[in-house]
Amino acid sequence: MAGSPRRAAGRRLQLPLLCLLLQGATAILFAVFVRYNPETDAAVWHSGNRSSSDNEFYFRYPSFQDVHVMVCVGFGFLMAFLQRYGFSSVGFTFLLAAFALQWSTLIQGFFHSLHGGHIHVGVQSMINADFCAAAVLISFGAVLGKTGPAQLLLMALLEVLLFGVNEFVLLSLLGVKDAGGSMTIHTFGAYFGLVLSRVLYRPQLEKSQHRLGSVYHSDLFAMIGTIFLWTFWPSFNSAPTMLGDGQHRTTLNTYYSLTASTLSTFALSALVGEHGRLDMVHIQNAALAGGVVVGTSGEMMLTPFGALAAGFLAGTVSTLGYKFFTPVLEAKFKLQDTCGVHNLHGMPGVLGALLGVLVAGLATHEAYGDGLGSVFPLVAEGQRSATSQAMYQLFGLLVTLTFASVGGGLGGLLLRLPFLDPPPDSQCYEDRIYWEVPGEREDEAQGSLRAEETDTRA
Amino acid sequence: MAGSPRRAAGRRLQLPLLCLLLQGATAILFAVFVRYNPETDAAVWHSGNRSSSDNEFYFRYPSFQDVHVMVCVGFGFLMAFLQRYGFSSVGFTFLLAAFALQWSTLIQGFFHSLHGGHIHVGVQSMINADFCAAAVLISFGAVLGKTGPAQLLLMALLEVLLFGVNEFVLLSLLGVKDAGGSMTIHTFGAYFGLVLSRVLYRPQLEKSQHRLGSVYHSDLFAMIGTIFLWTFWPSFNSAPTMLGDGQHRTTLNTYYSLTASTLSTFALSALVGEHGRLDMVHIQNAALAGGVVVGTSGEMMLTPFGALAAGFLAGTVSTLGYKFFTPVLEAKFKLQDTCGVHNLHGMPGVLGALLGVLVAGLATHEAYGDGLGSVFPLVAEGQRSATSQAMYQLFGLLVTLTFASVGGGLGGLLLRLPFLDPPPDSQCYEDRIYWEVPGEREDEAQGSLRAEETDTRA
Amino acid sequence: MAGSPRRAAGRRLQLPLLCLLLQGATAILFAVFVRYNPETDAAVWHSGNRSSSDNEFYFRYPSFQDVHVMVCVGFGFLMAFLQRYGFSSVGFTFLLAAFALQWSTLIQGFFHSLHGGHIHVGVQSMINADFCAAAVLISFGAVLGKTGPAQLLLMALLEVLLFGVNEFVLLSLLGVKDAGGSMTIHTFGAYFGLVLSRVLYRPQLEKSQHRLGSVYHSDLFAMIGTIFLWTFWPSFNSAPTMLGDGQHRTTLNTYYSLTASTLSTFALSALVGEHGRLDMVHIQNAALAGGVVVGTSGEMMLTPFGALAAGFLAGTVSTLGYKFFTPVLEAKFKLQDTCGVHNLHGMPGVLGALLGVLVAGLATHEAYGDGLGSVFPLVAEGQRSATSQAMYQLFGLLVTLTFASVGGGLGGLLLRLPFLDPPPDSQCYEDRIYWEVPGEREDEAQGSLRAEETDTRA
Repeated sequence: MAGSPRRAAGRRLQLPLLCLLLQGATAILFAVFVRYNPETDAAVWHSGNRSSSDNEFYFRYPSFQDVHVMVCVGFGFLMAFLQRYGFSSVGFTFLLAAFALQWSTLIQGFFHSLHGGHIHVGVQSMINADFCAAAVLISFGAVLGKTGPAQLLLMALLEVLLFGVNEFVLLSLLGVKDAGGSMTIHTFGAYFGLVLSRVLYRPQLEKSQHRLGSVYHSDLFAMIGTIFLWTFWPSFNSAPTMLGDGQHRTTLNTYYSLTASTLSTFALSALVGEHGRLDMVHIQNAALAGGVVVGTSGEMMLTPFGALAAGFLAGTVSTLGYKFFTPVLEAKFKLQDTCGVHNLHGMPGVLGALLGVLVAGLATHEAYGDGLGSVFPLVAEGQRSATSQAMYQLFGLLVTLTFASVGGGLGGLLLRLPFLDPPPDSQCYEDRIYWEVPGEREDEAQGSLRAEETDTRA
Repeated sequence: MAGSPRRAAGRRLQLPLLCLLLQGATAILFAVFVRYNPETDAAVWHSGNRSSSDNEFYFRYPSFQDVHVMVCVGFGFLMAFLQRYGFSSVGFTFLLAAFALQWSTLIQGFFHSLHGGHIHVGVQSMINADFCAAAVLISFGAVLGKTGPAQLLLMALLEVLLFGVNEFVLLSLLGVKDAGGSMTIHTFGAYFGLVLSRVLYRPQLEKSQHRLGSVYHSDLFAMIGTIFLWTFWPSFNSAPTMLGDGQHRTTLNTYYSLTASTLSTFALSALVGEHGRLDMVHIQNAALAGGVVVGTSGEMMLTPFGALAAGFLAGTVSTLGYKFFTPVLEAKFKLQDTCGVHNLHGMPGVLGALLGVLVAGLATHEAYGDGLGSVFPLVAEGQRSATSQAMYQLFGLLVTLTFASVGGGLGGLLLRLPFLDPPPDSQCYEDRIYWEVPGEREDEAQGSLRAEETDTRA
Repeated sequence: MAGSPRRAAGRRLQLPLLCLLLQGATAILFAVFVRYNPETDAAVWHSGNRSSSDNEFYFRYPSFQDVHVMVCVGFGFLMAFLQRYGFSSVGFTFLLAAFALQWSTLIQGFFHSLHGGHIHVGVQSMINADFCAAAVLISFGAVLGKTGPAQLLLMALLEVLLFGVNEFVLLSLLGVKDAGGSMTIHTFGAYFGLVLSRVLYRPQLEKSQHRLGSVYHSDLFAMIGTIFLWTFWPSFNSAPTMLGDGQHRTTLNTYYSLTASTLSTFALSALVGEHGRLDMVHIQNAALAGGVVVGTSGEMMLTPFGALAAGFLAGTVSTLGYKFFTPVLEAKFKLQDTCGVHNLHGMPGVLGALLGVLVAGLATHEAYGDGLGSVFPLVAEGQRSATSQAMYQLFGLLVTLTFASVGGGLGGLLLRLPFLDPPPDSQCYEDRIYWEVPGEREDEAQGSLRAEETDTRA
């Protein structure tokens, strides 16, 4: 009781101060380090003798925009399925994305595009930053409703850093291929979030159980997220691939894989549903697993059939995971995974990594011709055999799982810092703690919420 | 009563088995027939001496993505206007699209891109498959709420096949121009669905009448569909045209036509509405008729004025159709058209085909210059006069109407197979049969709103 | 009371007649003046010896589509936050956009692309028309809920005209740079709407106060608008810039600026909110101010740090404006600004213009190299110094404020014409006056549905 005004005052200042501090820090680092790259700098671009139409912008920007929609609209609304947590789902997605985009520009820049002490930015760095933000938002899905915005910003602070290190190890040190991020984005984001959620385990979470569900229209809002993610996923996986056939092929593989995961999700959802009814949770999530599972192999010569098979498998595993595995995770492993990111990003991400191992191991000069240099440059140059590339891919998965787990554990400890202010067990999945919420046109809800509010302020 | 558990068990297995069967079949056919085309195959692309930037991907993919959004987001949400059928509208759109995209890749591939026994796929085949899916979703609109998902999949199985045949006859055998599909997509999809709906006529459908309407927020969800369709329609009509001026001109014509159909829809809706009030059904649908009506002629030298006039006419006809013709269709012709596809796709599609006849007949070397070969190759090569091209266009419409009607009839018979499980007359337009539906909440605000309502109407 | 049927009859005819009249007029003007430009005309394009891939379409159309989504989806849904005005917000946005696109094609065409007595249209004119529509929709935000559709069409009629004149004066006569329209779009649209709203001041507006708020789901619909605006804003500012580095750089600057305005908005909103709670109004609007503030300077060598600083400032000013300035505007200046366009477009627009003055004044040959000619052609040609360009930029702001204020005043007088039919003070922010509105999840339907539920599960 006595602590209540102080906590309210603390909350009042915690988020603003953290936002201002982080923004101030990134702004200073931007001033010192970040510069336009040769494609965006007026003087440098015009000193070359190139036609405007050669600017990389025209080959990457449409893909970037699709990715940007997925990160902001897709993830935000996908998580808006909860009846009382739509403002936070969409709003904190927005906040986390904004911060992660700046911060990962710096982190990824240090690792990947440092030129003469300066980080060079352009459309590629925008795509990469959005990819990193996607990983942060995947982790957000695991702890959705159980963490405050200040906690989430600290999570992003740590996760972006480790994402950058892991990505650097995989892509630059190990020469692993992972254009669409089955490992670097999905596996990393999922297991980081899951381990973090484990560290934050709340034994009393059933006090908020009544809010852990959707209402009719919140499920439709979530479908906005699902459908935009589904539609633009071909752009996601292909955004950073080599130009030409590579980018083209990746979109095609992703497109087919997603159609197959959708069909297997509908099949399995009806099969395991009570009275053969479909479950919106499956449709909203598992249908997307086809995009995750070809994140690594999408740019390879997977074949259209291979894409269908991969998508089918991913949709199946994901749906069964939601039905049978998620309850076990909580009951046996004390792992509370709000959005089921283990089913959408975790298992399909690992499957995608393994599929990458397989397809890389099968790569031949015959199948890729002179294109082998684009997809597997080290194999083309004779530095590695295809089998050896496959082993590196597998090693990349293990590295990712390690970074994600250790990082998630550290993140969990960080987020348990006592001065941070998580929602109480009885107030999880509830917008009202962090937002001014308008009346809902529903008496009883108002009544009970008003009662709860007193509770919260206690 | 006795049959009820058995029917539930049957339903439980029908959809899963059908999904798995269809997916298995298309996967096998993909393994045997489908191959990357020269723009997506690593070895073939790199054996040519072409720059990555020449890859067709960069000229077609942004349009493809817009089309893909229209098919998945646009159609799905446009049909989400029903108060209790949002899950099914969005969800079955998703399911049907996923299946139709695979199946039409095969069917259209057999007809249009068979090379040495293999179907070649790339961004053009993705666009074409999405077009075919659009036709299926148009037909879905006619039977919305009255058919189960297993029935819908069988409908798609048949419709995609006939769509492919009809398209082949028109484009390849008759040399008809129909880039945006006034005939092949809109007319075909609408009349296929309407005849099918006629065969499935339910005399007792008024038992579900109370669910055949919107609620406030379901109408806003539907507007998401409308606005995305409206915004991206220029990309739809131009996606498969010749590159360069043709694609550019098509977007311009579609853009103007849509603005005019919007103005005429608002005008007519207020004119025929009670107390001059606008009707959301008109705005959601008829405003889009401008996109349908220039589906054939959009790539031709329609002139900006011609586009405005066509759009204006289409919006007018469509709005009047919703107001006056739909009730007659049901009362006199036993035709229950849930979404009014006759008004949005049927009549405007036929008008669009006739407009194509007119504009083709007026084509001159003077107006098209050396561009005549792109738009009317057979006329440019001297194999046909413009008048003769116009006659072929007209014949294409008749062929389409024939295929659509016969196909819709066959489809209706197929969907009446006794073991299929349609919703009972009293349970149409109801998600709960096929979906786990969460509670809906809020009673009380209703009271005060009803009070206001009286107030407002005073 | 006696006037009520007559007024209803008047309303019944006013909107239809105005739509038909305006559409008729623009159609005639299109017939006389509007022609395909050389990139869309079949004969002209093919008479040049150019490759299809050189068509401007491929460099501008993806940006155009993003802008088009912003105008139709973004503005429409952003204004759908009101609990009882969603149909009007989205619907009238649609109507105004449709008319403004046609009308501004004519007006801007007369000023900017008249060739031999004909207006040439293509993707650039589509972008420009959408920009003008954006200004009209900004003004709409100031009077949202207090004006009928016929009034709004008349507002658009006048505003498009003055927008065209102002734009011509700035860009063509004064040689001012303003690619993303901090002045021509945001400042102009905001102050036009604000002065107009002032002239239409309603002292009795508190009679509708109870409808001037959101409900839970209307706020989520508004977030659809916000997120699409946020995501696509880089395309908005860059759509009309010089191709190559200019377009690329503008997207980068806008992207960074928006991340910073988002962080400062969250910080300030929580800081000034009761109990540290975030306010959806701020998040929906002020987070976008970063896009407005770099509308002028985005194509210049602003530097990534400069973009962050500008965005941060804009988010701060905008949030504080919503919190402290809007109430004062109404209380002291009788200015009722429904959406707070002064905070999102007015102040950030002026700031953006001033930032343009600053960055233009700092332009050096060293920083821009040979690119100076693209960004500041008059400076590169030696006709002006950078300082002089800065003075012209400042003068452009003053001209814009003058045109907007005088225009808004005239507009207000026009809209007060007695035969026009504004909503009464007690019926503002209410869809029911202009729309057939369905029941709102009516009780009795619920009752019967609950009964049916048992039935279905049997």
